[in-house]
Amino acid sequence: MTYTTPTSESGAADDTMRVSVLHPGGSITEERRPIPAPGPGDVLVQIASVGVCGSDTHYYRHGRIGEFVVDTPLVLGHEASGRIVAVGAGVAEGRVGQRVSIEPQRPDPASAESLRGDYNLSPNLDFFATPPVDGAFAEYVTIGSAFAHAVPDTIGDDAAALLEPLSVAIAALRKARVGLGSAILVAGAGPVGLLCVQVARAAGATVIAVSEPDDARREQARRHGATHVFSPPDRPDPGVPIDAFVDASGVPAAVRSGIDAVRPGGGVVLVGMGADEMTLPVSLIQNRELTLTGVFRYANTWPTAIALVASGAVDLDSLVTGRFGLAEVPAALDSDRVAGSIKVIVRPADRTLRGGTS
Amino acid sequence: MTYTTPTSESGAADDTMRVSVLHPGGSITEERRPIPAPGPGDVLVQIASVGVCGSDTHYYRHGRIGEFVVDTPLVLGHEASGRIVAVGAGVAEGRVGQRVSIEPQRPDPASAESLRGDYNLSPNLDFFATPPVDGAFAEYVTIGSAFAHAVPDTIGDDAAALLEPLSVAIAALRKARVGLGSAILVAGAGPVGLLCVQVARAAGATVIAVSEPDDARREQARRHGATHVFSPPDRPDPGVPIDAFVDASGVPAAVRSGIDAVRPGGGVVLVGMGADEMTLPVSLIQNRELTLTGVFRYANTWPTAIALVASGAVDLDSLVTGRFGLAEVPAALDSDRVAGSIKVIVRPADRTLRGGTS
Amino acid sequence: MTYTTPTSESGAADDTMRVSVLHPGGSITEERRPIPAPGPGDVLVQIASVGVCGSDTHYYRHGRIGEFVVDTPLVLGHEASGRIVAVGAGVAEGRVGQRVSIEPQRPDPASAESLRGDYNLSPNLDFFATPPVDGAFAEYVTIGSAFAHAVPDTIGDDAAALLEPLSVAIAALRKARVGLGSAILVAGAGPVGLLCVQVARAAGATVIAVSEPDDARREQARRHGATHVFSPPDRPDPGVPIDAFVDASGVPAAVRSGIDAVRPGGGVVLVGMGADEMTLPVSLIQNRELTLTGVFRYANTWPTAIALVASGAVDLDSLVTGRFGLAEVPAALDSDRVAGSIKVIVRPADRTLRGGTS
Amino acid sequence: MTYTTPTSESGAADDTMRVSVLHPGGSITEERRPIPAPGPGDVLVQIASVGVCGSDTHYYRHGRIGEFVVDTPLVLGHEASGRIVAVGAGVAEGRVGQRVSIEPQRPDPASAESLRGDYNLSPNLDFFATPPVDGAFAEYVTIGSAFAHAVPDTIGDDAAALLEPLSVAIAALRKARVGLGSAILVAGAGPVGLLCVQVARAAGATVIAVSEPDDARREQARRHGATHVFSPPDRPDPGVPIDAFVDASGVPAAVRSGIDAVRPGGGVVLVGMGADEMTLPVSLIQNRELTLTGVFRYANTWPTAIALVASGAVDLDSLVTGRFGLAEVPAALDSDRVAGSIKVIVRPADRTLRGGTS
Repeated sequence: MTYTTPTSESGAADDTMRVSVLHPGGSITEERRPIPAPGPGDVLVQIASVGVCGSDTHYYRHGRIGEFVVDTPLVLGHEASGRIVAVGAGVAEGRVGQRVSIEPQRPDPASAESLRGDYNLSPNLDFFATPPVDGAFAEYVTIGSAFAHAVPDTIGDDAAALLEPLSVAIAALRKARVGLGSAILVAGAGPVGLLCVQVARAAGATVIAVSEPDDARREQARRHGATHVFSPPDRPDPGVPIDAFVDASGVPAAVRSGIDAVRPGGGVVLVGMGADEMTLPVSLIQNRELTLTGVFRYANTWPTAIALVASGAVDLDSLVTGRFGLAEVPAALDSDRVAGSIKVIVRPADRTLRGGTS
Repeated sequence: MTYTTPTSESGAADDTMRVSVLHPGGSITEERRPIPAPGPGDVLVQIASVGVCGSDTHYYRHGRIGEFVVDTPLVLGHEASGRIVAVGAGVAEGRVGQRVSIEPQRPDPASAESLRGDYNLSPNLDFFATPPVDGAFAEYVTIGSAFAHAVPDTIGDDAAALLEPLSVAIAALRKARVGLGSAILVAGAGPVGLLCVQVARAAGATVIAVSEPDDARREQARRHGATHVFSPPDRPDPGVPIDAFVDASGVPAAVRSGIDAVRPGGGVVLVGMGADEMTLPVSLIQNRELTLTGVFRYANTWPTAIALVASGAVDLDSLVTGRFGLAEVPAALDSDRVAGSIKVIVRPADRTLRGGTS
Repeated sequence: MTYTTPTSESGAADDTMRVSVLHPGGSITEERRPIPAPGPGDVLVQIASVGVCGSDTHYYRHGRIGEFVVDTPLVLGHEASGRIVAVGAGVAEGRVGQRVSIEPQRPDPASAESLRGDYNLSPNLDFFATPPVDGAFAEYVTIGSAFAHAVPDTIGDDAAALLEPLSVAIAALRKARVGLGSAILVAGAGPVGLLCVQVARAAGATVIAVSEPDDARREQARRHGATHVFSPPDRPDPGVPIDAFVDASGVPAAVRSGIDAVRPGGGVVLVGMGADEMTLPVSLIQNRELTLTGVFRYANTWPTAIALVASGAVDLDSLVTGRFGLAEVPAALDSDRVAGSIKVIVRPADRTLRGGTS
Repeated sequence: MTYTTPTSESGAADDTMRVSVLHPGGSITEERRPIPAPGPGDVLVQIASVGVCGSDTHYYRHGRIGEFVVDTPLVLGHEASGRIVAVGAGVAEGRVGQRVSIEPQRPDPASAESLRGDYNLSPNLDFFATPPVDGAFAEYVTIGSAFAHAVPDTIGDDAAALLEPLSVAIAALRKARVGLGSAILVAGAGPVGLLCVQVARAAGATVIAVSEPDDARREQARRHGATHVFSPPDRPDPGVPIDAFVDASGVPAAVRSGIDAVRPGGGVVLVGMGADEMTLPVSLIQNRELTLTGVFRYANTWPTAIALVASGAVDLDSLVTGRFGLAEVPAALDSDRVAGSIKVIVRPADRTLRGGTS
C-alpha cells in the first residue's frame, strides 16, 4: 500500500481523527479514532463537506429506519466530498490530491447484480451511515477508488457532496423515463423534490408540476424550475397529460393523488420513504397500464451528476442554507426544524465554524 | 361498399341473424337481429367459434364489472373467429373468404396512443361485450379490417378464437420481459395462467413456477409446461431467483406472496382482475426496485400469437373442454362450475350442438 | 363534409388557388388550381409559411432524388404551417380556425408499422413534395386531421413550419439515446445539424461537439449551443468519451471520422443523405459494439417539438434568414448559394413580399 | 490463499503441468510449466474440455488476427470447462470441487463499462488466447471466481466448454431482439450459426431461415431447428418479413444480401469476423431505419446459457464431432478441413485419446 501520512487539522501529525458518533439512545459525541488505512483498491479521503439527509435526522431521533437499528455506535453522514490523501494497493498514485465526490456504497463486484450494472442491488452491500456501517461525519473515510469520483474545480466542496442527493433524483427520473417534452408531476419540494425539478428541466421536461403544502417550498420549487405549483388537496391541472409522477414526499395521500394524475402508459416512481405498505389503486394501474417502481439509491449516476453540475444545467449551491462544524452535528441534524432550511452541510475540517472546537 | 349477401345457416337467404342477448336483470334470450353492414374499412365476419371468458360469466351473474353496467341489452363474447363474408368501402375484395381471428377492439387511429403504438390505451375505444358495445355471441359481427387477422388452415376455428386469451398472455409476458433463461412465477392456473405458462416456455423461460390451490389445475399447469407447482400458502422455492411474477389470479394474498418472491430488479405484472385497491408492500418494491404494472388487453399481439400457434410452440386446442350452440349460452356461461372445465366454446353457426335449435 | 368556402387572398371568393409548380426539366411556374376539398378525416389548411429544404432544391436542380423522379409536374415544399379553414367528414367542426403545423405524411393506419407506432415506415406512405405527391408551395393543402398539429400563439407561423426539420432532429437524437449528461458529436452545421445541437442541449447533453468546415456555420453552431467546434480534418477532442455521433452532413469522410470517435457501446445515427453506399469500418463497429442506424423522417415527434419550442427550450426563429412570396420560389430554392443563409421561408399568402404578385 | 496441491494426471504430485504452446512462426509444442497459483479473488481450474474455435485455427495458420499478433509464445483455447481445485484469497473454500464453465475474460471491475454492465467492453480486458494472454490448452488455468460458473451434473464437460460459443449466440440474439414470433435470417451454419439457430428457436422465433452454401451444413441447420434453408446466391423467401439478420459468416456478399432482406425497423447483427471494412447500403439502412451492430464476445450470458442447456432447450453435445488429447492440438486445429467436422474438443487431462502421450 502506498500511504502518505495525513496531517490532522490541529497541526499535529498524529494517526487519529475527529469523528461525530451517534450512540444507541440518541446521544452524539465527538471522539478521536484512528485514521483508517485504505485497503486494496481503496482510497483515503479527507472529508471537506457532508450534506445532512433526512435519514441522518431520522436515525438521530428514532434510532432506527425500518429494520436498520442503531444498536452500536454509528457515524452518520453519507453525502460527502473531500480530497484523496492516500491510496491502497492497486490504485494509481496519481489519484492522491484529487478532489472527489464520494459515492457512499461498497457493492460486491462479483455479484450477479453488479455484473449486469445494477450494483446498487448487490446483496450485502455496505452503505455509509446505515447500521452498522459508519458514515462521513469524520475527518477521513476510505472508499473504493471507483466510487471516489474526481470533480472539476468548478464544482465546490458543498456541491460535490450534494452530488449524492442529485444522484437520487437522476436515478428517479431515469426510471420515470423523463425526457424531451415530458410532463412530470413531483410530490414534495424538499431537497430531493427540488433536485427532481432541476433534473427534469435539464432533461427537457416542459411541464414540471409540483405538489407541496408548504408555501415557502412551493416558492422554492418555482425558483428551481417548476412550471406549475399547487397545494394539496388541490389537484394538478397543467393542461396536458402527465407522463410521469415522482413521489418525493412519502405521504400516502400524495402518492394516491399523483397516481390518479398519470396518463395511460405513464410511469410512477416512488422515491420518498414512507410506510412499509400502502393501499394502491391496482385497478387503475392495470387499466392505464401504469408502471410503478421505486429507487433504491442509485447506480452509474455520478458521471451524469458531475456533467450536469459542471455544465451549469443543475445548481446545487443554491440548496445550501447552513454550514456546521463537526461539534455542531446535533444542531445540523435538527436544522429541518428551522424555517427556510433546505439543506445544511457539515464541514469536519473547518474549525472556524460556530462551535467547531474540540 | 362491396357486399356479398350472406346466406343464413338455416338455408334461407334473409337479412337477419340469430344473436344471444343478455338483458339487465340477468336473463338471456336468443333473438333475431338484422345482419350488420360493414362500414368503411370494416369487414363482416360470419362467426365460427367464440370462447367464453370469465368476464362474460361475471356480467351474466353480476350485471356489471366495475363501472361497466349492463343497463341495456348486451351481446356477450369477445374471443371470436370466423370467415369474412363481406367487406366495406376501402377494403380489398380479396379478403372475402378468409378465415380470421377477431381482435375485438376498435381504437381511434388518430389518438396519440394509437399513433405511438399503444392503441389499446386509446380513449373511447369500443371493445366487444363491454357495455354498451355488443360482442360475438351472434352469427355475424363487423370489425375493422386490420383487426380481422387471417389465420392459416393449420389453426382451427376454436384455436383461432382462443388467440384472444393467448394475446393477453403474450401482452403480460412482454411486460414481464420474460425471455431466454428467465425464471417466472405465475399465480393462478386458469386459462390465462395456463397460457402464460405456455408462452413463458415458448419464450425461453427455464423456470416456470405456478401457484394454484386446485389440484386438477396444478396438474394442468404441469402438462402445459410448469417446471414447479405448489399450493398456497406454500411458497415457491424453485431454487433460483424469480425474475418476474405474473398474477393471473386476482387474489390479493397471491399477489402479495408473488411480489415477495421476486428478485431485486425484477418485474410484477398484474393480469387478473380483483379488487379495485390492494395493500401493497411499497417499501419492498422500493428496496428491490421492482417494476409493477398491469395489462389492459393487448396491442400488436395477434401476429405473434398466430406465429406461435402455427409453429406448434403454443397449443390452444388442449384448453377446450366443451362446445355449445347459441341456444346454450347460459350453460356455457355456467361451465366454470363444472369440474375439470377449462375453456368452453360457443359455436353460433352449429345447429348440431345440444340445444342448438331455434 | 363540413366546408367553409375559403376566400382567396386577392379578395375574390373563387374556388381556385395559386400554386408553384416544378416541371420535368426544371422550370417553375405559378399556376392556378382548384382548392382541394378535404376528404373524410382530413382538414383543409390555408398555408402561412413553408420552409425550404435541401431536398426541394435538389429536386429543382437535379430532377430526382434516388429513385424518386420528377417526371410529372410537382409542387415542392414539405415544411408547412397555416390555419385550418375547413374540415372533412368525421373531423370536429371546432378545428376550423386553429393554427396548425403540418406533419406532411399520410401513413396507412392499418399497416403493421402504423399499428406498432412506426407509422413513418408504413408502406406506400404519401409524403409531401415526393414524386408524385404534391407539397405545400400552394395557398391550400389537405392533410389528415391527426397530422395537422395545433400550435399555441407563442409559436409563430415560420417556427410552426420549422417544426418539421426540428422533428428530424428529435427523431435522430431519440435514436442516438441522447440524454442527461450525454456527450454527442454532430457532423454538419446546416439547419438539421444546428437543430440537433439545440435538441441535444435541451435533452441534457453536456458535451456537444460539432464538426463543420465552414467558418460561419461553426460560429452558428456555437450560438446554438455547441460546446466544442472544429473544422475537419481536425478531429474532435472534447476530453470525454463520445456517447453518440449524429451525421447531418452526408459526407463519407465525416461519417468515417465520426464513427471513429464513438466510445464502446455508443451510437451512430445517419441523418444526412449522401451516397447510396459507403465503406464502413465494420470491424470497429463490432469491436466497440456500436449501434448504427438512420432516420427516415419521424413519427410521434410533433407533440415534443411543440412543447420544446413553446417552452423556449428550442428556438426556431433564429434559423430564418429570408422570406419569399410564391412567385419567388426559384430564388428561395437557390438561397443556399447566398452566404450566411440558413433557412428561408416561402409565404404563399403574402403578396407584400418582393415579387409576390401574380 | 487457500491452496490444495493438485495432483498431475501422471500421478506424480509435482508443481508443473502440461501446456500446448503456439510459437511465433506457427509451430506447436507441448511443454511443462508451473501450475499457476490463484491470486486474490481467483480460482484454479483443472481443465476438462476445451472447444477449438476458428480464431484458434486462424492464429495457428496466420499468426495474427487484425492487430493481435503472436509475437511471443501463446497458449490457445478459450472455450473451457473443468473443476475448481484451489481458491485464492477472498473466495469461499466451498467452491473447491465444483465443476465449472470458464468465462474466459478478466474485465476491470472499476471501469465505467463494467460498472454499467458492459464489462466485455472494459478497456485493457484480458481475454484467453488473445496475445499476449494465454488460454486453456493446458492442464490448469486461473480465472476470477465470478467467471468460473458452476454447472449442474446434467451438463457434461464438453457441453460446459461449449457454453462459450453458446454465449456468443445468446449475445447476438439479444442484440437482434429476437423473441416470441420473430422471423430471423442467419448467414452461415458453422458452430456459431447453428447455435444462433438453436437459441432463436429457444427464444420463440418461428421463422428461422439459414443461408449456407455447404450442403451438409444446411442439413445440420435443419436438424438444429432452421425452418427454411437456402444456398446463396439464392435469396431467402420465408413468406414473412424478416425481423432480424444475424451474420455468422463474415462474408461480405452474405452480409449485403442479409441486410437487403430485413424489414423496415429491423435489426442486423454482425457476429462473423471478416474484413475490417465493408461497403454497406447506408441509404437502405436509413430508409428502413435498420439498426446495425456487432457483438464483441458477451457479458452476463453464462447464467442464461447454463439454464438453456440444463433445461434441454439447447443441445450442445450434438455439435461435437471429435475429441483430441493435448498432444494432438495441431490435428485438432486442422479439423476444420475434415468433411463433416463441426466442433472438436481438446481434453488436456485425457491420456487415453489418440496421441495423448507426452
